[in-house]
Formats: sequence, structure tokens, C-alpha cells
Amino acid sequence: PVGRPAYRKHAAFGGRMVMIGFGSIGQGVLPLILRHIDMKPSQITVVAAEDRGGAPELARFGVAFVRKRLTPDNLRQVLDKRIGKGDLVVNLSVEVASMALVELCQEKGALYIDTCIEPWPGGYSDPSLPVSHRSNYALREHMLALRDKFKGGTTAVIAHGANPGLVSHFTKQALMNIARDTGHATARPTTRQGWAELARDLGVKVIHVAERDTQVSRKPKEIGEFVNTWSIDGFVAEGGQPSEMGWGTHEKALPRDGARHDFGCGAAIYLNRPGLHTRVRTWTPKEGPFHGFIITHNESISMADYFTVRNGRRVAYRPTVNYAYHPCDQAIMSMHEIMGKNLVQQKRQRLMVDEIESGIDELGVLLMGHKKGAYWYGSQLSIEEARKLAPYNNATSLQVCAPVLSGIVWALENPQAGLVEADEIDFERNLEICLPYLGPVVGRYSDWTPLDGRGELFPEDLDNEDPWQFRNFRVA
Amino acid sequence: PVGRPAYRKHAAFGGRMVMIGFGSIGQGVLPLILRHIDMKPSQITVVAAEDRGGAPELARFGVAFVRKRLTPDNLRQVLDKRIGKGDLVVNLSVEVASMALVELCQEKGALYIDTCIEPWPGGYSDPSLPVSHRSNYALREHMLALRDKFKGGTTAVIAHGANPGLVSHFTKQALMNIARDTGHATARPTTRQGWAELARDLGVKVIHVAERDTQVSRKPKEIGEFVNTWSIDGFVAEGGQPSEMGWGTHEKALPRDGARHDFGCGAAIYLNRPGLHTRVRTWTPKEGPFHGFIITHNESISMADYFTVRNGRRVAYRPTVNYAYHPCDQAIMSMHEIMGKNLVQQKRQRLMVDEIESGIDELGVLLMGHKKGAYWYGSQLSIEEARKLAPYNNATSLQVCAPVLSGIVWALENPQAGLVEADEIDFERNLEICLPYLGPVVGRYSDWTPLDGRGELFPEDLDNEDPWQFRNFRVA
Ligand SMILES: NC(=O)c1ccc[n+]([C@@H]2O[C@H](COP(=O)([O-])OP(=O)(O)OC[C@H]3O[C@@H](n4cnc5c(N)ncnc54)[C@H](O)[C@@H]3O)[C@@H](O)[C@H]2O)c1
Ligand SMILES: NC(=O)c1ccc[n+]([C@@H]2O[C@H](COP(=O)([O-])OP(=O)(O)OC[C@H]3O[C@@H](n4cnc5c(N)ncnc54)[C@H](O)[C@@H]3O)[C@@H](O)[C@H]2O)c1
Repeated sequence: PVGRPAYRKHAAFGGRMVMIGFGSIGQGVLPLILRHIDMKPSQITVVAAEDRGGAPELARFGVAFVRKRLTPDNLRQVLDKRIGKGDLVVNLSVEVASMALVELCQEKGALYIDTCIEPWPGGYSDPSLPVSHRSNYALREHMLALRDKFKGGTTAVIAHGANPGLVSHFTKQALMNIARDTGHATARPTTRQGWAELARDLGVKVIHVAERDTQVSRKPKEIGEFVNTWSIDGFVAEGGQPSEMGWGTHEKALPRDGARHDFGCGAAIYLNRPGLHTRVRTWTPKEGPFHGFIITHNESISMADYFTVRNGRRVAYRPTVNYAYHPCDQAIMSMHEIMGKNLVQQKRQRLMVDEIESGIDELGVLLMGHKKGAYWYGSQLSIEEARKLAPYNNATSLQVCAPVLSGIVWALENPQAGLVEADEIDFERNLEICLPYLGPVVGRYSDWTPLDGRGELFPEDLDNEDPWQFRNFRVA
Repeated sequence: PVGRPAYRKHAAFGGRMVMIGFGSIGQGVLPLILRHIDMKPSQITVVAAEDRGGAPELARFGVAFVRKRLTPDNLRQVLDKRIGKGDLVVNLSVEVASMALVELCQEKGALYIDTCIEPWPGGYSDPSLPVSHRSNYALREHMLALRDKFKGGTTAVIAHGANPGLVSHFTKQALMNIARDTGHATARPTTRQGWAELARDLGVKVIHVAERDTQVSRKPKEIGEFVNTWSIDGFVAEGGQPSEMGWGTHEKALPRDGARHDFGCGAAIYLNRPGLHTRVRTWTPKEGPFHGFIITHNESISMADYFTVRNGRRVAYRPTVNYAYHPCDQAIMSMHEIMGKNLVQQKRQRLMVDEIESGIDELGVLLMGHKKGAYWYGSQLSIEEARKLAPYNNATSLQVCAPVLSGIVWALENPQAGLVEADEIDFERNLEICLPYLGPVVGRYSDWTPLDGRGELFPEDLDNEDPWQFRNFRVA
């Protein structure tokens, strides 16, 4: 029709695409895929456990839908004839094990992308597993073992949504910006080692994924209902996992409830408590200081691992990295409610998309400890702008869907890279594809530290020598 | 008009009434006073710092309004000619020192009632005061000194709203009910000592004022706005005070952040943290288990003091008593926001009255440790019923206003009792007057303990020998 913008096709794809899961992210990304990848709807099959409101969209685009709950037993049977060499699996489900899908794709020679390393049901909440094994650290270590096993195989982009995903690219851009603004002459690093050294040389001690979601609806949260702007099942599952963080070399002491893992890369620690119940002080440009939750996330571990500088076997530098998430207000209440019931999930859930009245998702990375103090770099996408940019999305989902798209494009352009995390792939190419969907993307310096306004009315356990100690961030 | 119910006049009053403060409680109680006390609107003067939306009501009833912010300097000047022998001061303000008003009334021979011991501005938040002196314990000790000074003076009913206030009467009724239901033969005690021994003999270890406010509105909380169903200034002020609780004789150890006061009755301890940031597990019949906040309140201290059994000077028995408050959902959000800003109060506030769409205030006392485990006794007043019962109220304010009315009636009936707290006055007479305004008032037993569902996914610091230790209730 007249006036419709001509969307840029970033890549062409001739194979079959199987999308697993069609919830907030699947529904949000489908139009972007059809818009920016040269392919036909008839190449796509969506497999999901139930209809989560996406039926009108599937009908509109004419995409095939298979309603099936995947299990360890039926996975290969359902997918066997649907995936072959050169095909693509886009995994946007909860509770379908990423490892099982990656193995299948590697065997078949199919491309793969997901936004989170998911286990089969119970992997997060089986009380018979030690806390350390219910961590994202453990899930990632298992995935890294597959990386070695399938070295040089078909590309599988692991954990490439907003966070994990986009935030790794934000972090590299932020490092380049800080280098520029502090007069630290540097070329764009070309190796992992180079990036880690840049972070070290700039003095970055702590990186938060600092997010404040202000989206609101007029429909009050009901009692016994969990309300959120993206997967409620996904959020509750990861929020019930132990809180985890990449653990920096500047940290003077482990938290009282903290522990190291006795296996793997050693980049992260976990706390003996769920992320839904673990808060830190953090900062974003529009919100200012606030309390965010340290929900465990792959990026906290992968980024800490990526930015590690070693002297021989000794770790010489690593930043502390953690998520500091302020979900939408109604999710805050939902979290308070579920904590009051010892994490027994509410019977009802409500994903807010069309009902959202206003608000933004301010999502970025906060790099701290360098010459200029703190620097936040990220997206301030509003619900209004998200709606203008793409159908079937809110601000939160669009920030996830853009990097799903860019990850697919990167995989199509680099089909033989084996298993990769966001940190390992081209941040500029990814940002280029994502930026049109992120609203204002801004960098802001701040002299905020977690010591601001502290210890005035009550004695607090503070380290006044080094503001950037985890002890100072923690809301105890 | 035809069909209007003939309201019972509980007492007659011929003097002048000065009501100080006309916010949510003042506005809610005025119609009840005019309904149930035989007096004329022309006898009443309202003094308040500003118009908080009560102008239509004042006009409707024809009550005089003096707009004046009382200060230590102008207090006597403003009130001198308005208060004399046999008059009545109803103090429903924030930030007007109760002690100053009590002294004035004692000197003049005027009756007095309030719902909270308030200091002058800054009394809660002066960082130069030690934490112990910013406590309700300290405010109460100062007030008790006046009690001794003005022994046998005109009646001053101290802290007589819902809580503090009504909950002291609920507790006595609950003790009588538990005695009945556990086959503990007892007459209604007639002395403080008698009541304390009854609580001891029944095995009551812990008393929570367990409140769950579910009132909601469709207007989302805005950023930088504190929303609540009663005084925002009052809630923020007390929420910023140290968390406090009456400290039971069964407790094995002080909390790590807890401390005793080095003066006064010794019935309570405080924590070195604000109540807005201190949570405990508690239970109400409709909500089930939930997390409430230990906001400091006079009743936590006065009830623990009242129910103390002494052997000579040794304290032989005392229950732990604390508030466990789940304010309305939008207040939960507001609390999360203010904590993120280190207790700097939001610029805007919204008191929800007419906009409330649904919900109840489930407010009662939870007596624990006796033969039948836990017993909750209290009011489950809904917004719909509150609106039917009285104008200018929500469920929360009406639960406060009824005992303000009953306290006034009791003072008129007992004008020479000196300074009294709720625990010291006739619970049956007060309940009789309050009950018609409290909606369903129910007693429910439960086998809930704070150990339910604990320690399953994460190791927790529990005392499995005695479920009723504070350590088990605390959300750490
Ligand atoms: N990296 C990021 O930034 C980011 C952001 C949001 C979501 N995520 C992740 O993306 C995934 C999807 O999120 P969402 O918000 O779309 O979730 P959602 O809850 O809205 O939808 C989940 C989908 O998975 C399907 N599903 C569940 N179990 C299944 C099974 N056994 N077999 C087949 N399908 C099944 C459901 O039917 C549904 O279609 C989650 O893993 C979530 O953690 C990542
Ligand atoms: N015991 C209980 O159950 C209970 C429950 C709710 C409120 N309260 C207490 O009742 C009091 C009133 O609560 P509310 O919800 O009506 O408060 P509110 O904030 O709605 O109104 C406060 C009133 O005090 C007036 N005021 C403030 N400073 C003043 C000054 N210096 N001089 C004169 N007037 C002044 C304001 O103008 C306003 O009219 C508070 O102390 C609160 O803590 C007790």
C-alpha cells in the first residue's frame, strides 16, 4: 500500500524455520522476521504447548501452527522431520531444554538461536539438587561443554535476547564511549583478551544490567495473580533460582550467604537465596537511584567470564556483573505476594501488552568505577514508540525481539561458527540491526554511588573506602 | 427523612470540641460523632494546617474551620481561648506533639483523645538523635511520665484508633475466646495482672497485629507518588522510625540488628533499621500466609508491657508483640520506591477514598503459641460495607474512626481517669460501640506456623524446636 515504509531486508533465508514457543517474545518477533528477512511465511512452523493469544497473528501471516507440549520423550519425534541441514530453530519457549535442542540442531546441521538457557521442567526447582546445580552457572557450564564437543559446527547463538544478549553489545559500545570520553586512546579491540584489558584499563569494577520498567495498566493486580510485561513463567522460574553474579577481583569478601561453585570457569558466585528476594542499589538516567532485584541471568556470568584478564592461570582482573531489575510496578507486587507464599506460584497470570497505558522500559548497562564514576548506556523505549515500530509488542518484548532478529541475521551471515554467546559475536552488526527498534539509545554519566545518602538515620554495614564493593550495593 | 435509621446516642456532650487535623481520620469520624453523641455541630471547631478535601463536609455539617499550622510557638495562643474545663480535644493530626496537647488539656481540665503519640516535626527523623530516642518506646515513656505527673486528672485517652487502640480490645476478646475453646475455665479478669496471667496460662507467646489491606483503585501509582488508604505523612513518618516490637520472654536471642533501650519499662526492643524495610511472616484468614512490615506502633509496646507477669522484679512472662502490616498494593509499590531513594519522601501523595474499586481491610490480632496454635480475631470490613455504614470513609479509616468514637464515649463516661492507654480501659464497652462499624468480626484458628514451607529450596536460619521464635518469623 501507498506510504508503507520499505523495510530493509538484512538477509535471505531459503530453509525451514521452526519457532518453538509463541508467547510474548515469539509473537513479538514474528513480524520482525518477516519484515527484515527475505523469506515466506510458508517456510515457518510454530510449535507451542498452547495458544497464548497468538492465533490472530498466525492467521494473519498464514504461518503453520503445531500445538504440542514438547517433552524429553517426544522432542525428537515431533521435530525430526521438521528440521534438516540449513534449517533454523528459533527457541522462544520456557521449559524446553536448550541443550536438547542444540544437540539436535548440531546433529542435523541446523542453525539455532535462543534467548535463555532453559532446562526441562523442574530443573530450577528440584529440591533434591544442591543450590549450586540449580544455578545458571551450572546450565552455562553444561552448554559450554557442548560448545567444545561441537566445535566448528553449525552456528548456535545462545542466550541472545535483550538480556542476556543485547546488553553484551551495549557494554562494548559503552566501553568504547568511556574510552573516548576519558581520553583513553584505543582502537576497537578485536579479541576477547583485548576487550577484557580495555575494561580493566578503564577501571571498570562493576557492571549492572540496570533496568527500570515503568509500564502500567489501569487494571489492578488481582489477589493470586502474577502480572508482568513478559513471560510470567519465565520470570518466576529464574526468580526462584539462586541469585547469581559475576564476581569481581576488587571484591574484598564473599557475602555471608554467598558461595563459589566447585566446578567450571569460576567467574561467578551464587547466594543461598532466590533472586526474587535479593535487592541491590542501582541507577538509571530517568529513574535515578532505585532498588533492583538480582535475578540470575546468563549475561552476569558470561560477561564476567568474557572480561576476565588472566596472568597465566591467575585471574588478574574481572568485573562484578549482575542484573539489577526493577520490573513493572504490578510485578513488584506480584513478587511481594509470591514471596509471602514461599514461592508457590500464583494460579493466575496476566501478561500486559495491549492494556498498557503508559511507561517505558529503561534497559541498559551501568559501568562503574572508571574515571568518570558511573556510565549508563541503553534503551529508553516507550510503549507508545514500541507500538509505532512493530505490532504485537510492548516496550519490553521489542527490546528482546530486535536482538533475536539481529542474532538470526548474524547466524545466517556466519553459519559455521559453532556455539556462541552474545559476547563473542559482532556487536556493531547487531546494534546496527537493533537500533531502529530501541527508541532513544543514550549514554549518561553520573556521580551516583551506592554510598549516597547512606548511614544517616541508621547505622549501616558500609565500606567507605571503596564505594564499588558489593557490600555497599546490597540491600541487606 | 423517612427510613433513616435512628442512631443510638451513646453519650451527651455539652462542652466545646476542638478537633485538630482533618485528614482521612478527622473527616471519617466527624459524621460518627454527630451521629452518636448528643451534641450540636456548632460546638465543634476543626483546626488543621490545610484543607485536605474536607471542605464540603464542613460546609454540610456547619462546623467551624480554623486553618492554622500549629507549632510549638503558636500552640497555646491558638488553643488558649478555645479550650477550658470540661471541653474536649480530639487530636487527629500529624506533627502536632501529643505531649504538648496533653499537658495543655490537663492544665485546663479538658478531656483529650488521640490515635498515635506524635512528636513535633523532626522528632522521627532527626539524625542527631540516637536511634533509641527516635522510637515509639521513647515517646511512650515520656507520655507515661506525664501519666504519673497528672495522676487522677482529667481523662486523656492515648493512642486510641484501630491500632493502636481497637486491637487491644480485640486481644482481650481473643484471650477470652481461646480460654473458652481450649477448656480453660476463667472469669473475665479484672486487673492488668489478671489479664497477663491469663495470656501466660493460655501459652500465648506471640501476638501480631496482622493486617492485610486489599483495597485497590484503577488509577495506577505514578512515579514519585505515595499512595495509601490513610495518612501518607503518618505512614512514612512511622515507617522511617526504627522497627520495634514488644519482646517476649520465650525469645532465645536478640536479633543481630536488635537492641534494648537503656531506660524505661523494658518491654520492647528496636531494630537498627526502619520498619518500611523490616518484614515478618504472618497470617490472616482471608489472605493466608503473607509478608507484613513491622512498622513501629504504640500497641506493640503497650500490649507487651500490659501482659507482663512479674515475680518480684523479675519478668516471668511477656509475649512478643509486633505489627505485621500489608498495606494496600499501591502502598507496597510506594514503599519499594521510597526505600530505593533512601527514605526521601515522594513529592506527591494520593489518599485513596472515593476512587477505591474493591477490597477489604482485614485487621486483627493473631495470638500464637497456645494449645490450638494460632488464633486470629478481627475485622474484615469491605469498602462496599464501609460506604454503606458511613460517609467520607474507606474500610481503613472506618476501622480507626469507630474506636475514636468509642474512646470519646468512654472518656465522657469516665472523665476523671487521668492518662490511659487502650489496654487500661473497658474493652467490652468499646467493642460494643465499635462493632456495628467493623463489618464481619470473626475469630479463626489456624495450624499455620512461620516454619510452613521453609528451608525447602534454600538453607534458612530456622529454629525448628520452637516455631514461635522471632527468628522464624523474620524475613531475612
Ligand atoms: N534474553 C531476554 O532478554 C529474554 C527476555 C524475555 C524472555 N526471555 C526468554 O524467552 C523465552 C520466552 O519468553 P516469553 O515471554 O515469550 O514466554 P511466554 O511465557 O510468554 O511464552 C512461552 C511459550 O513457550 C511455550 N511452551 C511452554 N512449554 C512448552 C513446551 N514444553 N513445549 C512447547 N512449547 C512450550 C508456551 O506455549 C508459550 O508459547 C523464555 O525462556 C524467557 O526466559 C528472554
Ligand atoms: N491508631 C490508628 O489506627 C491510626 C490509624 C490511622 C491514622 N492514625 C493517626 O491519626 C493521625 C491522622 O491520620 P490521618 O490519616 O487523618 O492523617 P492525614 O495526613 O490524612 O491528615 C493529617 C491532618 O493533620 C493536619 N496537620 C498536619 N500538621 C499540622 C499542624 N502542624 N497543625 C495543625 N494541623 C496539622 C493536616 O492539615 C491534616 O488535616 C495520624 O497521626 C496518624 O498516624 C492512627
